[in-house]
Amino acid sequence: MRTVDLIIKKRDGLELTTEEIQFFVQGFTDETIADYQASAWAMAVLLNGMSDREVTDLTLAMANSGEVLDLSKVVDIALDKHSTGGVGDKTTLVVEPIVSACGLRVGKMSGRGLGFSGGTLDKMESIPGYRTNLTKAEFLAQLKDLGLVLTGQTGKLAPADGKMYALRDVTGTVDSLALIASSIMSKKIAAGAQRMVLDVKVGVGAFMKTLPEAKKLASIMVSIGRLAKRKVVCLLSDMNQPLGYAVGNALEVKEAIETLHGGGPQDFREHCLDVASHLLVLGKAAGTLAAARKKAEATLQDGSALERFRKLVAAQGGDVSYVDDPGKLPVAPIIKEVTAPKSGYIKWIDAQIVGETSVEMGAGRATKEDTIDPAVGIVVLHKVGDRVKKGEPLFVLHANSQKSLKAAETRVLAAHKWSAKKVKRLRHSYGVVDK
Amino acid sequence: MRTVDLIIKKRDGLELTTEEIQFFVQGFTDETIADYQASAWAMAVLLNGMSDREVTDLTLAMANSGEVLDLSKVVDIALDKHSTGGVGDKTTLVVEPIVSACGLRVGKMSGRGLGFSGGTLDKMESIPGYRTNLTKAEFLAQLKDLGLVLTGQTGKLAPADGKMYALRDVTGTVDSLALIASSIMSKKIAAGAQRMVLDVKVGVGAFMKTLPEAKKLASIMVSIGRLAKRKVVCLLSDMNQPLGYAVGNALEVKEAIETLHGGGPQDFREHCLDVASHLLVLGKAAGTLAAARKKAEATLQDGSALERFRKLVAAQGGDVSYVDDPGKLPVAPIIKEVTAPKSGYIKWIDAQIVGETSVEMGAGRATKEDTIDPAVGIVVLHKVGDRVKKGEPLFVLHANSQKSLKAAETRVLAAHKWSAKKVKRLRHSYGVVDK
Repeated sequence: MRTVDLIIKKRDGLELTTEEIQFFVQGFTDETIADYQASAWAMAVLLNGMSDREVTDLTLAMANSGEVLDLSKVVDIALDKHSTGGVGDKTTLVVEPIVSACGLRVGKMSGRGLGFSGGTLDKMESIPGYRTNLTKAEFLAQLKDLGLVLTGQTGKLAPADGKMYALRDVTGTVDSLALIASSIMSKKIAAGAQRMVLDVKVGVGAFMKTLPEAKKLASIMVSIGRLAKRKVVCLLSDMNQPLGYAVGNALEVKEAIETLHGGGPQDFREHCLDVASHLLVLGKAAGTLAAARKKAEATLQDGSALERFRKLVAAQGGDVSYVDDPGKLPVAPIIKEVTAPKSGYIKWIDAQIVGETSVEMGAGRATKEDTIDPAVGIVVLHKVGDRVKKGEPLFVLHANSQKSLKAAETRVLAAHKWSAKKVKRLRHSYGVVDK
Repeated sequence: MRTVDLIIKKRDGLELTTEEIQFFVQGFTDETIADYQASAWAMAVLLNGMSDREVTDLTLAMANSGEVLDLSKVVDIALDKHSTGGVGDKTTLVVEPIVSACGLRVGKMSGRGLGFSGGTLDKMESIPGYRTNLTKAEFLAQLKDLGLVLTGQTGKLAPADGKMYALRDVTGTVDSLALIASSIMSKKIAAGAQRMVLDVKVGVGAFMKTLPEAKKLASIMVSIGRLAKRKVVCLLSDMNQPLGYAVGNALEVKEAIETLHGGGPQDFREHCLDVASHLLVLGKAAGTLAAARKKAEATLQDGSALERFRKLVAAQGGDVSYVDDPGKLPVAPIIKEVTAPKSGYIKWIDAQIVGETSVEMGAGRATKEDTIDPAVGIVVLHKVGDRVKKGEPLFVLHANSQKSLKAAETRVLAAHKWSAKKVKRLRHSYGVVDK
């Protein structure tokens, strides 16, 4: 088998066989296939697409390119959740404790921030001492004993995917639905997931800008699940405006803790209950979504979800006093409330601009080497559809320099669009794709 | 300017600016742009195409990526010819002496064999002592003094093109008309050509398999010429069956010398006169194609073209006694005449199979490191349309081993297709594209 012939096949719009895809992924992993061949192949895939069967073969080949976790001795049903990434998306911090409080074991390997969207690991590391680098043995032991884990990838799961993502990032081949879907699914399968909720974000602050695109991605992932014998439920969630109010690491942890206390922003709370309900049904802790939701709500009211979060932080070496008193979390030296420049209805709060501004303030990385300032970020105080009067607080900036404060103020003000007439609120959800 | 953004632009079918193309070619040449980015870009170009303006910018940027020869102090009009490559294509060996005998200066930098098509340099090196590695100073001096040069590339002409071709070869991106056209034209422009005849081969033994493809390539090259202020005439020539009879290095040199003596295969002689006539008109040695042809024919009849070939060989260190007595040229240890297995009309002689067989016998290189056996090859004795009786000679194999002989016999026999009914002869030419 010659690599160049596989490239030519995809270039000419033909379907690769299972063996050809395995040959390609194996060669790419062990570097007998050069990066310049893989990138030409990826461009051909992006422009010509892949069949569901091909994407599934690619997913499984990438999942099998390294270690594959077997969770069957530790959990009855290996559950997982994943978000395609957004602005203010701290969902995992609330959902995992809810699911755990409902009696299901759940262990999740999260990622770092990417571009303008934040990363769960970066957020959790706002809590002093919290370890995100558990070993595989630690992961399995904690999943068995505590039933709740939230850490980074253990060992070399799906190394082909990591290598391919790095290559796609610099070769204009990120935006292929086939490659996005297989990347997400290969990591989940390598991490041992059998049933999963995939939170597909849609809107200006997400990788999928339009609903048709998001639906297409969701349906590819559901197909991969069907062909690879995994149960996949995709939620289509709004990411035009930030999720909740807080954007920035410690700020988001605070908001997650408020939500675990039974409060928090209404949209964020709704979203967490949605995701958790689907996980509870998949994990057979509830027979229907309605029953699941009741259970989930109860854990926020009775403090049991918060208690699970405390246990999680403690188990991974974090200082629980920060959970009990979030005021102890890192605070930025400069905090400024910015007021509304006019009266009217808020028509738009651009999630991408808010996300980018937060990264520029130091909450994310422009390059791999950048360090993160956990304290900085933005708290938007309103949602699209709110009526605000001139001079009322509009958003709060948490900055580590006057320069960064000034730039952020201009950008976040520009991210708000106004209307004199009443504006419809944005939906939280655009539906579910599960078959 | 970010490389990835240029890749994304081509991926999305947008047009790159002149500056963007220059940035890309310069970065690729000095290796600040990685091969894995260039190959993804090349795949996007292959699948989405390029405008004539873009191809011209690419051509000029590649031509300017190294030294550009200035022939204005040596010749009045810098002429050149190029063939897209075929089987039995020894045209340059006859055309350049004709043009020179008609009083025009002509210097050509030729290439090596590629795939199943032979290379002019490999052919000329059948003549002991003949140097194909003239320096730039030697090239210019010989062009001025003798008025006739036939050598390899001097120095680093269009290094971006060489680097890009090597990359395309292993990434499935050879078959892009934009990239083929810019590759050919960049080398010609770097070599100083102002007016040129491009011999675009069409058929199973050529890179362009169909006439529409060949016409498209020709019209792209004519457009590049127009936009880059070079005069380009493209001939569309048949390459379904081998050109002439001989395929193999010394065998082709012999056939070229026969042709310079006024003989040679009729189709090959016609083709040489065609190409030469266009060059004579471009070089202003004749006012019309008809007048040019008369002049060209005369040089074959009066021995003046042959004399120019002798002078060329002598000037580049070759042993002229081999021109005077081609029987001295390398002879294969095994020569076998294969007879017709049946009576009938020859319907097809597959040029690609004949070319591949010749390479397998040792006349070409499967890898860069292979050495060439100048003596081996195939002499087909007929043309499509000929009537041949069973037992009459069909072709002659010149081999260096029994094993290679046996394999070649089977393949070349299979390359001949037969018909009981009369068969139309193939055309030599499918026309001219010059605007």
